[in-house]
Amino acid sequence: MKIAITGGAGFLGVKLARSLLADNALGIENVALVDMVAPPADLAEDSRVTAVTGDVADEDLLAEAIRPDTDSVYHLAAVVSAGAEADFDLGMRVNLDATRTILEIARRHGNRPKLVFASSCAAYGGELPEVVTDNQQLTPQNSYGVQKAIGELLINDYSRKGFLDGRALRYPTVVVRPGKPNKAASTFASSIIREPLQGQEAICPVAPETEMWLASPRTIVANTRRAHDLPAEAWGPWRAVALPGFTTTVGEMVRALEAIAGPEVAARVKWQRDPLIEKIVYGWPARFETARADAMGFHRDPGMEPVIKAFIEDELS
Amino acid sequence: MKIAITGGAGFLGVKLARSLLADNALGIENVALVDMVAPPADLAEDSRVTAVTGDVADEDLLAEAIRPDTDSVYHLAAVVSAGAEADFDLGMRVNLDATRTILEIARRHGNRPKLVFASSCAAYGGELPEVVTDNQQLTPQNSYGVQKAIGELLINDYSRKGFLDGRALRYPTVVVRPGKPNKAASTFASSIIREPLQGQEAICPVAPETEMWLASPRTIVANTRRAHDLPAEAWGPWRAVALPGFTTTVGEMVRALEAIAGPEVAARVKWQRDPLIEKIVYGWPARFETARADAMGFHRDPGMEPVIKAFIEDELS
Ligand SMILES: NC(=O)c1ccc[n+]([C@@H]2O[C@H](COP(=O)([O-])OP(=O)(O)OC[C@H]3O[C@@H](n4cnc5c(N)ncnc54)[C@H](O)[C@@H]3O)[C@@H](O)[C@H]2O)c1
Ligand SMILES: NC(=O)c1ccc[n+]([C@@H]2O[C@H](COP(=O)([O-])OP(=O)(O)OC[C@H]3O[C@@H](n4cnc5c(N)ncnc54)[C@H](O)[C@@H]3O)[C@@H](O)[C@H]2O)c1
Repeated sequence: MKIAITGGAGFLGVKLARSLLADNALGIENVALVDMVAPPADLAEDSRVTAVTGDVADEDLLAEAIRPDTDSVYHLAAVVSAGAEADFDLGMRVNLDATRTILEIARRHGNRPKLVFASSCAAYGGELPEVVTDNQQLTPQNSYGVQKAIGELLINDYSRKGFLDGRALRYPTVVVRPGKPNKAASTFASSIIREPLQGQEAICPVAPETEMWLASPRTIVANTRRAHDLPAEAWGPWRAVALPGFTTTVGEMVRALEAIAGPEVAARVKWQRDPLIEKIVYGWPARFETARADAMGFHRDPGMEPVIKAFIEDELS
Repeated sequence: MKIAITGGAGFLGVKLARSLLADNALGIENVALVDMVAPPADLAEDSRVTAVTGDVADEDLLAEAIRPDTDSVYHLAAVVSAGAEADFDLGMRVNLDATRTILEIARRHGNRPKLVFASSCAAYGGELPEVVTDNQQLTPQNSYGVQKAIGELLINDYSRKGFLDGRALRYPTVVVRPGKPNKAASTFASSIIREPLQGQEAICPVAPETEMWLASPRTIVANTRRAHDLPAEAWGPWRAVALPGFTTTVGEMVRALEAIAGPEVAARVKWQRDPLIEKIVYGWPARFETARADAMGFHRDPGMEPVIKAFIEDELS
């Protein structure tokens, strides 16, 4: 089996690559990791891994990674929300043009590879009901979400035409992200768990009662792999789905941290509201009914405490 | 006022141009008609009209029509459904790339023109409820519908970013189209009225009980102009809307023809079912609740008889 992962040196790309490479049943011959940055050492040193380092918007680079015998493409590279909002042309180039180029390369090869696309709940926006259901129209209020919604449409059409076998997944906000805060408006949702556990203070810019729609990296990797493995028939006439997540408040997140690590650790979260971030975060839907994904057997995290425990296990030990 | 109409020599483009040029209150200085074909004589001879003849996917051609002082762009040029399905690349080039180029030219000029985009109910598809409402997600099952849905998303984002002032309208099937049948699967809906009224037989390829969602060219032109004139605030966070139409069956259409022109004329409709066309037409939603468009004051045809009468008045006398 030959695989290409764009964004393969990113947060989720690395975890997905590790999960695939650890699965001996797959008989993996090669995993090409396309990313602007080099993959971490454990992946770089695996003889089955090819690092294809450069710009995903570069067709020649993509053609190095997606070959006529590539079985599966996981397309995760993206300029994230705040980035695409700050630089419109960059977002269009990476999030839209590169996606189109990937689809065209796959189509040209004629081997109908599987293609899993990381979409996002940022594709929702505007006037939303209390609970978002599977039939909700996508009216995104940020360029990143628009570009993801377009990716979903294209992947559906390329699949319908038989050019490839695509699947698009709307990820919830994924916590807990290791490392440093990034430029996403949601970055605090990881910081308020990650920093206190490592003896540092973290600022929470939204009120404790703020609701969020979350999933853990373990569940996202499992669901991304499930999306790949499901037969085409399981998708029916539409190749995109909102993945299961769980709704929690920021206050509940900190209480879960306290239950696991004690009040001293939880007290490292400082509440300091930032109206700009609040405005963005309040625009995100936090309650979903994911009947379609549930029926398709996608997994759901049971809540915040196990997510924090898994983070400690995976990243801090 | 300076206006550009792409597809300005087509069925609806010509009617829109005539309507705008006849409205002295607008103080029109110039209307550029961009189309592969030349406009009809009455338009070509109007001193305010510039025919910009060529491929709408050609950026230089577009730049001739959309200038730094263009106030309003009506983007109607399109490869229709069967065409975009038969030639995928042509559809992507004309229906997607050209739309993007138009948006980019408008953005570059920096004068924030109004832009009205002709989308289509072909953007609906897949698993649909009995009655389609404003919140229905778009899961188109044809490339043309996918390209229209992407156009809507882009127009929204360009508007949100303040690059232009866009409005996208999902037209119902427009009847009665004058002239010859075209390659649209819906072409029979016009043929079964138009041909009998002119002494010719017409074949109806679907059962009499087949429901359709229709609007007249007069109403479409009025609604397209209304979409342009509404203030930005009237659109709220989303710049696309499904226009009002009326639901009728093909049998009722022929009964309306009989009521107006007599049984001899109606008898010129021959019923000869074509499973291929039936399959396509049955995939189209025929019942809508257009609460949003109604609240915005868009017009609705009262039914089939006045539509036929208007056709006779506008095209056959
Ligand atoms: N993490 C989340 O909460 C979340 C939520 C919803 C959707 N997603 C989506 O999941 C995917 C992966 O997210 P992540 O959290 O791992 O993000 P990440 O930023 O950690 O990883 C993305 C990777 O893409 C790479 N990349 C960006 N632009 C590139 C370019 N021009 N050329 C080559 N590589 C480029 C980056 O270097 C990075 O390694 C993305 O598509 C993202 O939009 C993530
Ligand atoms: N008529 C309907 O029932 C209906 C329904 C829904 C949506 N629409 C939309 O309304 C718009 C107008 O429809 P219409 O019925 O007038 O269609 P039409 O086919 O009569 O007009 C379209 C015009 O676009 C021109 N065109 C096509 N490709 C071109 C290219 N590459 N370069 C330059 N010109 C090109 C054609 O020459 C034609 O004159 C289209 O965008 C269509 O998708 C129409």
